[in-house]
Amino acid sequence: MMQLQETFKALEMKGDELVLIDQRLLPACEQDFICRSCEDVFHAIRDMVVRGAPAIGGVAGYGVWFAARQARGDMDLFDRLCAHLVDARPTAVNLEWAVRRVSAVARATSMDLDAIRREADRIVEEDIAMNHRIGEIGSRIVPPGATILTHCNTGALATCGWGTALGVIKTAYGQGKVAHVYADETRPRLQGARLTAWELVKAGIPATLIPDSAAATLIRDGRIDCVILGADRITADGDVANKLGTFALSVICRRYGVPFYSAAPTTTIDFDTPHGSMIPIEERDGSEVTHIGDVRVAPEGIGVYNPSFDVTPHENITGIITECGILEEPYDVAIADLRKRLGR
Amino acid sequence: MMQLQETFKALEMKGDELVLIDQRLLPACEQDFICRSCEDVFHAIRDMVVRGAPAIGGVAGYGVWFAARQARGDMDLFDRLCAHLVDARPTAVNLEWAVRRVSAVARATSMDLDAIRREADRIVEEDIAMNHRIGEIGSRIVPPGATILTHCNTGALATCGWGTALGVIKTAYGQGKVAHVYADETRPRLQGARLTAWELVKAGIPATLIPDSAAATLIRDGRIDCVILGADRITADGDVANKLGTFALSVICRRYGVPFYSAAPTTTIDFDTPHGSMIPIEERDGSEVTHIGDVRVAPEGIGVYNPSFDVTPHENITGIITECGILEEPYDVAIADLRKRLGR
Repeated sequence: MMQLQETFKALEMKGDELVLIDQRLLPACEQDFICRSCEDVFHAIRDMVVRGAPAIGGVAGYGVWFAARQARGDMDLFDRLCAHLVDARPTAVNLEWAVRRVSAVARATSMDLDAIRREADRIVEEDIAMNHRIGEIGSRIVPPGATILTHCNTGALATCGWGTALGVIKTAYGQGKVAHVYADETRPRLQGARLTAWELVKAGIPATLIPDSAAATLIRDGRIDCVILGADRITADGDVANKLGTFALSVICRRYGVPFYSAAPTTTIDFDTPHGSMIPIEERDGSEVTHIGDVRVAPEGIGVYNPSFDVTPHENITGIITECGILEEPYDVAIADLRKRLGR
Repeated sequence: MMQLQETFKALEMKGDELVLIDQRLLPACEQDFICRSCEDVFHAIRDMVVRGAPAIGGVAGYGVWFAARQARGDMDLFDRLCAHLVDARPTAVNLEWAVRRVSAVARATSMDLDAIRREADRIVEEDIAMNHRIGEIGSRIVPPGATILTHCNTGALATCGWGTALGVIKTAYGQGKVAHVYADETRPRLQGARLTAWELVKAGIPATLIPDSAAATLIRDGRIDCVILGADRITADGDVANKLGTFALSVICRRYGVPFYSAAPTTTIDFDTPHGSMIPIEERDGSEVTHIGDVRVAPEGIGVYNPSFDVTPHENITGIITECGILEEPYDVAIADLRKRLGR
């Protein structure tokens, strides 16, 4: 069976340099952003050269390696550099997790730079392996000749490589099962237009970009075989917090009987939060809606409500694709079982 | 009872000049576009200084008056100017209708310029009066303290004055019944952000702009008392073709039991088309999605699907507000009755 190959690396160590694709410039320009210090990594994360929780985790691991190299045994300096790194984006859980994991190895090995770098490598390798596993498992639900709709960006750019939901689509495409992909542009930040469309073109997958509002008619008219998208947080009962727009798609899919899948690693599951209603909804700056670039598109004096994600109730979700299998109703039971298996 | 006053005129004859607000520059800049000839009116319509079918009709009437003045009795020239005017935007039905109506008066009165101008005035006056009537009738369904969601622009800018769906909201606000309005930004052309938000700020109505995808959560969470939006075409069974995004809103409203209204004059009803599925869906240029201003936001090589409207099935619609009353299920019967009453 054919295996689709990634045609770019969004995150790669070349010698002692961490080379990132500068996602701020996509899709107009493909330019590398090179990190040679912990401070460079801090800027890459804070200024969104790289975004997507798993990708941030991968980059942060190398940030710790840079910090260890710069500290030359000065543990106070090392701790300060690591703490600074964690501050780059306070909300990304993977950032703190990766810094903690790699700095623990630093301490355990008395700052052995090779061991630290191997640990940073392992975070990236594990993430890519997990994404390929999610891709393999998820591709089983894709019917032959499928037209798939996705939302936001969940590809190689958002992870350490391959991607989660977009990884499933790429794996299934490699198996010859995908006829066409529709990508929602994903207002207000346009991750679908800027990033997912770019990855789809790169991969040579036949794809069409749509305004978010066009999805409903495609779903109703039977032009979509399944929806596959990501997850930012999954609660113990299977509710999924994900990019704004996910919930509306789930309602349309349920109304018209179109399968609706979320794909994410099990690290996305928040076993201690029982329901989606308990997830706080982050609001982002209104300027994402009132301005496009530097141009004001809404009048002075108008209020703005700009939540960055919404919550999809588990009853609208056909399945949650993870590296440990596909979770299905009853989700509370499936997720409790998984928790036992994983020993978390 | 308080009556909200319009604080601007989007379309007004001052002496022998037709003064329009240049909608291309809103909301950043409020600048008049002055028409002194039939050619000026042609440009105003073609270049979208003015948009919205009823507004185009109103402007076109004065275009005929300019044509009559310029022709000085040369009927060939008059006919050529009128035909040219109709070509400004071939899809707007009101444009041809208004040109035909006013040029008929020109012929019947042997090019009496005063009579021609009175007929053009009448189109504007009738449209404004009809919109106020729609506002009065529609305001009856607005509960006290209502929070209303609307989509696209259906206000004074889209008509000869006051507006249809936004007119209902303004009338109800004048009656003290409206606590808050949410306006969808309305991708891809952002009529909600650019125009509706501007009209709401002008009217002093407390209002919040949202990305289109944010509406679903507000509706589910009981934060919207009713949705009121416009219609581009209404079929004999009550299906409504309207701006892209309307259909998805209707599905969410139906799922969560929130009243969903369309407001439009009876001239919008296409009595001879039985079902919404028979309405051709106009596709607009992909650059509306791939570019923002001059900036490319999607990669070269990606396909685009950009339908300008969608069709909402009548079973999702609580009522259709017209100047002749509110149509309700069974719509086919209500619309057939209306047709008889109107003698069309």
